[in-house]
Amino acid sequence: MRRPSVRAVELVLCTFCYLLVGAAVFDALGRESEVESGHQRLLVQKRGALQRKFGFSAEDYSELERLERQAEPHRAGCQWKFAGSFYFAITAITTIGYGHAAPGTDSGKIFCKFYVLLGIPLTLVTFQSLGERLNALVRRLLLVAKRCLGLRRPRVSTENLVVSGLLACAATLALGTVAFAHFEGWTFFHAYYYCFITLTTIGFGDFVALHRGEVLQRKPPYVAYSFLYILLGLTVISAFLNLVVLCFLAASADWPERAARRPS
Amino acid sequence: MRRPSVRAVELVLCTFCYLLVGAAVFDALGRESEVESGHQRLLVQKRGALQRKFGFSAEDYSELERLERQAEPHRAGCQWKFAGSFYFAITAITTIGYGHAAPGTDSGKIFCKFYVLLGIPLTLVTFQSLGERLNALVRRLLLVAKRCLGLRRPRVSTENLVVSGLLACAATLALGTVAFAHFEGWTFFHAYYYCFITLTTIGFGDFVALHRGEVLQRKPPYVAYSFLYILLGLTVISAFLNLVVLCFLAASADWPERAARRPS
Ligand SMILES: [K+]
Ligand SMILES: [K+]
Repeated sequence: MRRPSVRAVELVLCTFCYLLVGAAVFDALGRESEVESGHQRLLVQKRGALQRKFGFSAEDYSELERLERQAEPHRAGCQWKFAGSFYFAITAITTIGYGHAAPGTDSGKIFCKFYVLLGIPLTLVTFQSLGERLNALVRRLLLVAKRCLGLRRPRVSTENLVVSGLLACAATLALGTVAFAHFEGWTFFHAYYYCFITLTTIGFGDFVALHRGEVLQRKPPYVAYSFLYILLGLTVISAFLNLVVLCFLAASADWPERAARRPS
Repeated sequence: MRRPSVRAVELVLCTFCYLLVGAAVFDALGRESEVESGHQRLLVQKRGALQRKFGFSAEDYSELERLERQAEPHRAGCQWKFAGSFYFAITAITTIGYGHAAPGTDSGKIFCKFYVLLGIPLTLVTFQSLGERLNALVRRLLLVAKRCLGLRRPRVSTENLVVSGLLACAATLALGTVAFAHFEGWTFFHAYYYCFITLTTIGFGDFVALHRGEVLQRKPPYVAYSFLYILLGLTVISAFLNLVVLCFLAASADWPERAARRPS
């Protein structure tokens, strides 16, 4: 393997280990929060008082609760199992931040701060590197394809790459739309909206995959698909940004030349 | 003014107009959603049925509702007034995406998609340009300061700039911590956490400024401060990233040279 490819593999492994470590700590901190949280205890007390006042049963109360959750869909429940913590770590360092889960304890918030302080630059560099490798791969595939079509001296222009990038982005969105519409029971439109809001790293959190029922515990293949989808989807977007936005920035500003001169 | 400065001013004006247009459309679409939403009507019906079943008053119900909201703090209510829409537009194109408000109607979601598709690159380029101007300003100020200190041939190294950048980031966080702790009634720790999660553009939405009571209508100066804080804070972070991450990328990857060769 050539040097840039080795570098990309190293970065991927590094990011993966970083996610595992983060998931383990968030998992531990989350359990602590479930046990200790005085805030939660207070809420339970208040609920008890209201239940006594109106004499409704626990089932009635949970229907009321469900009703409230429908008013703010897909926000219910906090999943601090390991897969959930891994999911949380992904949303934190990619800056998606759905907010379907957020560190409840002060120690969790402090760890989260230092975790993303290192994690976000690491993720940026990893996606950047992967995106570059992806562009190099597409360039080579296009050359082979042009040769197969009988062109004598094939050249791959930036326009070719941009068009391929657009097609790859569209394919990524389509792949996500179909899968999430199927597994989450969303309409195609909502699944598409979810993929778009996720891959732009906005992450409103009005739609969150893996958040309905006990999916995280019951369907490991779908969980793995979702994690991979988010990470590979962001790689495709990075490859496209690498091609377009950085190219535009390079053409319009003066920093690349300065940056190239600076390292000495 | 020199050319890059003119460019930065143009970009700021452009982004500001873009935010105004977005706020106006989200405002209009939000009103429509309040009137039409069948989902909301259904919820009101269900609530009525439950209220009849247990015979509790509207006040009791709103206490229950408040209780539910405490379990998911700072998520309550949807502010589709103009200031709220402007706030929403800021969180969308900066990819913060708290999710305290999200487009409820399908037409809102479609507009949101195209809005951020153009808005995110525009914001990226604007912050990039502003960050560069800020670094240039700091470099000049440091030169003046060194001259005042009596240095014969003062030079500003990258290390000087990085240290200044770190100090600027710390000052930005401190400024936000004090202000939000005061106006939102949060602890300093929570206000600091809010600023950090906002300026990294993660935006979990567990703490959202301007979201308590009727602040958006009642305290225009604080609203303006918050908007400016988010935008200027992100500029400071961009300036620092411009200095550090892009410099690191330039030293470790091969794209800047390629990018510099490409524009021809
Ligand atoms: K976000
Ligand atoms: K978010």
